[in-house]
Amino acid sequence: MKKIISFVGIAFYVAVLQAQTWIWYPGDYEIWLGNRMNNRRTERGAFFPPFWKTDSHYVVIEFSKQVDLERAENIFITAEGKYNVKLDGKLQFGMPSTLTLPAGKHNLNIKVWNQATPPAIYVEGKTIHSDSSWKVTYEDKEWIDESGKASDTSATVYMNAGYWNFDRADQRPSQFMLCREPLQAVSREKSSKGELLDFGKETFGYITFKNLSGKGSLSLYYGESKEEALDTAYCETLDRIQLRAGKVIDLATNEISAAGDFCLGNSKAFRYVYIEKEPDVQFDNVGMEYEYLPVEYRGAFRCNDEEVNRIWEVGAYTMHLTTREFFIDGIKRDRWVWSGDAIQSYLMNYYLFFDSDAVKRTIWLLRGKDPVTSHSNTIMDYTFYWFLSIYHYYMYTGDKAFVAQIYPRMQTMMEYVLGRTNENGMVEGLAGDWVFVDWADGYLDKKGELSFEQILLCKSLETMALCARLLDQQDDRDRYSGMATSLRAKLEPFFWDDTRKAMVHNRIDGIQSKSVTRYSNMFSVIFGYSDAGKQEDIKQNVLLNDSILKITTPYMRFYELEALCALGEQELVMQEIKDYWGGMLREGATSFWEKYNPEETGTQHLAMYGRPYGKSLCHAWGASPIYLLGKYYLGVTPEEAGYREFRIAPNLGGLKWMEGSVPTPNGDISVYMDTSHIKVKAGEGKGYLYFTSRKTPKSNIGKVEKLGGNQYRLRIDTKDEVRVSYR
Amino acid sequence: MKKIISFVGIAFYVAVLQAQTWIWYPGDYEIWLGNRMNNRRTERGAFFPPFWKTDSHYVVIEFSKQVDLERAENIFITAEGKYNVKLDGKLQFGMPSTLTLPAGKHNLNIKVWNQATPPAIYVEGKTIHSDSSWKVTYEDKEWIDESGKASDTSATVYMNAGYWNFDRADQRPSQFMLCREPLQAVSREKSSKGELLDFGKETFGYITFKNLSGKGSLSLYYGESKEEALDTAYCETLDRIQLRAGKVIDLATNEISAAGDFCLGNSKAFRYVYIEKEPDVQFDNVGMEYEYLPVEYRGAFRCNDEEVNRIWEVGAYTMHLTTREFFIDGIKRDRWVWSGDAIQSYLMNYYLFFDSDAVKRTIWLLRGKDPVTSHSNTIMDYTFYWFLSIYHYYMYTGDKAFVAQIYPRMQTMMEYVLGRTNENGMVEGLAGDWVFVDWADGYLDKKGELSFEQILLCKSLETMALCARLLDQQDDRDRYSGMATSLRAKLEPFFWDDTRKAMVHNRIDGIQSKSVTRYSNMFSVIFGYSDAGKQEDIKQNVLLNDSILKITTPYMRFYELEALCALGEQELVMQEIKDYWGGMLREGATSFWEKYNPEETGTQHLAMYGRPYGKSLCHAWGASPIYLLGKYYLGVTPEEAGYREFRIAPNLGGLKWMEGSVPTPNGDISVYMDTSHIKVKAGEGKGYLYFTSRKTPKSNIGKVEKLGGNQYRLRIDTKDEVRVSYR
Repeated sequence: MKKIISFVGIAFYVAVLQAQTWIWYPGDYEIWLGNRMNNRRTERGAFFPPFWKTDSHYVVIEFSKQVDLERAENIFITAEGKYNVKLDGKLQFGMPSTLTLPAGKHNLNIKVWNQATPPAIYVEGKTIHSDSSWKVTYEDKEWIDESGKASDTSATVYMNAGYWNFDRADQRPSQFMLCREPLQAVSREKSSKGELLDFGKETFGYITFKNLSGKGSLSLYYGESKEEALDTAYCETLDRIQLRAGKVIDLATNEISAAGDFCLGNSKAFRYVYIEKEPDVQFDNVGMEYEYLPVEYRGAFRCNDEEVNRIWEVGAYTMHLTTREFFIDGIKRDRWVWSGDAIQSYLMNYYLFFDSDAVKRTIWLLRGKDPVTSHSNTIMDYTFYWFLSIYHYYMYTGDKAFVAQIYPRMQTMMEYVLGRTNENGMVEGLAGDWVFVDWADGYLDKKGELSFEQILLCKSLETMALCARLLDQQDDRDRYSGMATSLRAKLEPFFWDDTRKAMVHNRIDGIQSKSVTRYSNMFSVIFGYSDAGKQEDIKQNVLLNDSILKITTPYMRFYELEALCALGEQELVMQEIKDYWGGMLREGATSFWEKYNPEETGTQHLAMYGRPYGKSLCHAWGASPIYLLGKYYLGVTPEEAGYREFRIAPNLGGLKWMEGSVPTPNGDISVYMDTSHIKVKAGEGKGYLYFTSRKTPKSNIGKVEKLGGNQYRLRIDTKDEVRVSYR
Repeated sequence: MKKIISFVGIAFYVAVLQAQTWIWYPGDYEIWLGNRMNNRRTERGAFFPPFWKTDSHYVVIEFSKQVDLERAENIFITAEGKYNVKLDGKLQFGMPSTLTLPAGKHNLNIKVWNQATPPAIYVEGKTIHSDSSWKVTYEDKEWIDESGKASDTSATVYMNAGYWNFDRADQRPSQFMLCREPLQAVSREKSSKGELLDFGKETFGYITFKNLSGKGSLSLYYGESKEEALDTAYCETLDRIQLRAGKVIDLATNEISAAGDFCLGNSKAFRYVYIEKEPDVQFDNVGMEYEYLPVEYRGAFRCNDEEVNRIWEVGAYTMHLTTREFFIDGIKRDRWVWSGDAIQSYLMNYYLFFDSDAVKRTIWLLRGKDPVTSHSNTIMDYTFYWFLSIYHYYMYTGDKAFVAQIYPRMQTMMEYVLGRTNENGMVEGLAGDWVFVDWADGYLDKKGELSFEQILLCKSLETMALCARLLDQQDDRDRYSGMATSLRAKLEPFFWDDTRKAMVHNRIDGIQSKSVTRYSNMFSVIFGYSDAGKQEDIKQNVLLNDSILKITTPYMRFYELEALCALGEQELVMQEIKDYWGGMLREGATSFWEKYNPEETGTQHLAMYGRPYGKSLCHAWGASPIYLLGKYYLGVTPEEAGYREFRIAPNLGGLKWMEGSVPTPNGDISVYMDTSHIKVKAGEGKGYLYFTSRKTPKSNIGKVEKLGGNQYRLRIDTKDEVRVSYR
């Protein structure tokens, strides 16, 4: 029975792939759409593009498919771009929208040119469909000799086509837009000069006016806080429009619309909007169109502690606001796709939406095109996170095809990195490298060999070796694993300080520094690079040591708390979650922030980068409890790629009860736990439930195995609910 | 006096550079415009893009300029794309079209995003102008730290802006179009089914209809020959339109226009057009809009032989038809930019239009962007011509700035080549390499080490060394000249056959082949790689040896005749020019062909690539007499870059008299010669006139020096006409 079900699952997956869909060169649509995303940032009415290289799509793409037809077939063809169609090497007249293929074997080639948007095609027939089985190339190298014979030595590299979910001919990829829904303010407050609207919580979208008319100017000042919206001189985002002769002019973009019902052209992030207008400008109502990616909340978490529940909900909302065309950092700013931010979004996503397409889109965009001219987003650490994110993706989804597609760009990215290593095989910040680590309320030395960066590099090399093995790239595997082994062997000799019983921050000109920071120490625990003794040293001397520079971003708290969870400190971490994220809620947060230092007060919480409202109050990396609660409390992880084999190790961490579910590629895993019962229902796959019990536990299905001490495990190989009683 | 004039010349040059003009990232506009050019090819109504990688512009560009103003200044700004403006690091609201800069030092930054067309700006003020002194980058890497301070270690690579001649704000680069002029057919011939128009000579443009109306379809069949136009089943290009409900539908592109006066949307090459229509379709007149690049015919040549004069004129017309946005191969097909074709166009151009911008545009386009994924146009030899063309360009124009701009792409292109050399440091055709050499009426072995390819590689390495020296890149110079020396030392040991007294064609697995072809032998002469004895061997055993496979393309005849001229065989070459190019004229050519085998007859001349009208009858490489007559008969060449020092060595080659002029960067050099007089007038520069005389010659200015034998020279350092009488 189980086998049939899993066979049905696979059949369904294949069927989805086989339905016709718009296809393109893999990564190209993602890069193009990413440019639209990254270029929508504004700062006080000025367009604000990223400072790294913005890549673009290949403008000419050849799509090809070999078919073997039992009977003649008519196909429908449409494309984004100017195109031609070749059947068995013969060019067809014009840009045919239909074509009849006789029975038998045929080569079908479609070549598309499009400068402005990615070349894409959609083909629909009885058996012929545009899908990921089509081959694509940006250089078919089909030169001919003097007799007209095409080359047979062109050595062209073909890739499988990229696709998303544009499954109808009229769903042109270049026309993609997120969903919108009208929303109204929850309160309005008039003042002498204007009106302040409160939408009740952090939100994102386009301000709309009913019956906007008259003559004169109107300004909108957006605020994630009330203070920001009212501070017209310093709020981070604003709009100015001019009404004249029945027209509305957006003064930032010079776009002109007819007066009447009017919607601003660019979305903004805000809870508050303060509007000032000249007296001759009128409108009936101001509202907004909330803009969002339609996602399913597949992950869930509830427990006896309402504060924790609220933290999970606000985290999920923060994730939803920042999960858009791509996983972005924050919705006010930068509204850019950053690799270090994104890897955390991916991990949270695996415990919330399980939107694999959003992960793939973001990974493609972050990598961009060759040649590599800088680190990911210019940041050294972000390059390393990019590598790591691909193996994570594989483990959570089992999607080996994606690893194969992206692997050539992993290779060139790693060549860039290796071209910048020193004689120790280690990275130091060279000109053009942003060594970021974290925003810290204290001095972080960025010079020399940072232990943090070497640990990430080592893990990146291991990731390359893993992916190479997955793709049967034997030479690469040997090369990268050799380098990883060599680097890993140097980490302790270079950075471990036996007096301080911790890894030091860095090493300059061969001299170990005296400074200890949390970063490398916590990654050393997470990656299992330290033995049990050193892990205990790190816990005592670094993680639980208040004299070590404190982390004040949810970004690095993510890893700090993960390290503590990995050390079994779920109770301590639960308290930290309640203190830190609960602290933001007590400050009035309706989404989680870019940075939170509990020692600050009042409007200090709003400032960053030397600007009074520089801080983003809705930042993806603020939502990490989503990940921690799913992975270390519900305790669900993939043991084999794509949850073919799962691991469930629930841990109440001091809660009385908790329940929730974790999405997997083709189902969900539900977990309930209280102090005497565990219930698990796994929609697919199989694996072990791990737990501790003082007395011999019982289960309704299967036989509990004792592992030693209080440790037990139970094999789960059923879709039925498995119940365990324990003490 | 001369110094003052030359100072004025320089001042003028600087003034031209200083006038505001539209600017962009160097090479980007050229690549974008090239895509429009290369993608206009059609084959029987099907869109036909190139088979190599089509690159594209960087979509986000930052333009910057530091200014130091004596007084405050207002500037006007416009851009192609969405843009922002930063003054001294402060973003300005919106996309300002004007800005006031206070007196003093300022940093002005403009950042533009444009997916569809290249980001470009135009800035105009009293002293601030957009011009090539502006810096541009595709990654400014201006990250900030937590305090908001911008990075000072970004190591961004800035280039000088690219530009052409869009000197007014309303001359938006993306709107560029060639010139057009209406033309009428010289004869019309009705037949039972249609009407044949003859435009009198090869031409290029858009067919136009007066008052096109009615209902039904209309087909146009284009022919470079009458036979082609009338062969509706096999002509290479055609158009089909449909009239319906007052609309004209182009059936190839699906573009719809209003009926009435109608112009086809895509240009075609033709002399003849055959039109068939359904009876309910009416029009008053069919004409054309001739499309052309406005160029000045600065070079000139006339002599006593009218056939030679006609060859020069038809050559010049062939050049004009193929000198467009870029130097293309042929106007019927491929209408693509090919490196091997282009280098010949450049050389002809230096003796005709001296359009330096067209050369630069073509060199940029041919190179495209990194990463290099194949040879230029996929052809190994074409990569080498690309290198050579840059040093030619420098010698003729003296434009070192261009060499500096393109040099980084020369480096990456050469790295690609060097990555494909064998253990001898030689190139062999690997998978993906098209080893072209020539279209030959006979077997050309493309396997192993071809002597021809090694000679071109050697010259390319020498070119790299020359450019590196020019740019003070000492390490590169040493590296490339070392490789060139090493390769050159192997050429004779590897390829010279002492029995046959010639270079053999190739070497496979270390074994010299027995085959001798003309290609490497003639390049060995042209590049001076053979000593005088071996040059004589080559002349006798190869160049003048009818048993060696004959060359049947004007393309390789270019080099064959150049080699003979270099050996002083101007009289022989004059006869060859008259036979070969005169032969095409006698076949009715109104422009010169892609290939001409005098042994063929009738419609054999039209066929190629296995297609009855596959041959291009207007092919740039057909026009080589333009170059040969200027360089080896009028005898004018730059001795130092940009004609700072020239060399004039006229040679009648059997003519009774000849006169002409050769353009230089800032003037022309006119030469007249008959059997007893030489007259030279050099608009700029200085140099020597070289000639032979049996008796002691006399000159009106300066003093003739005897060099030995009958050889004389005269220093020319005047703008006045210098007259020499000799015998």
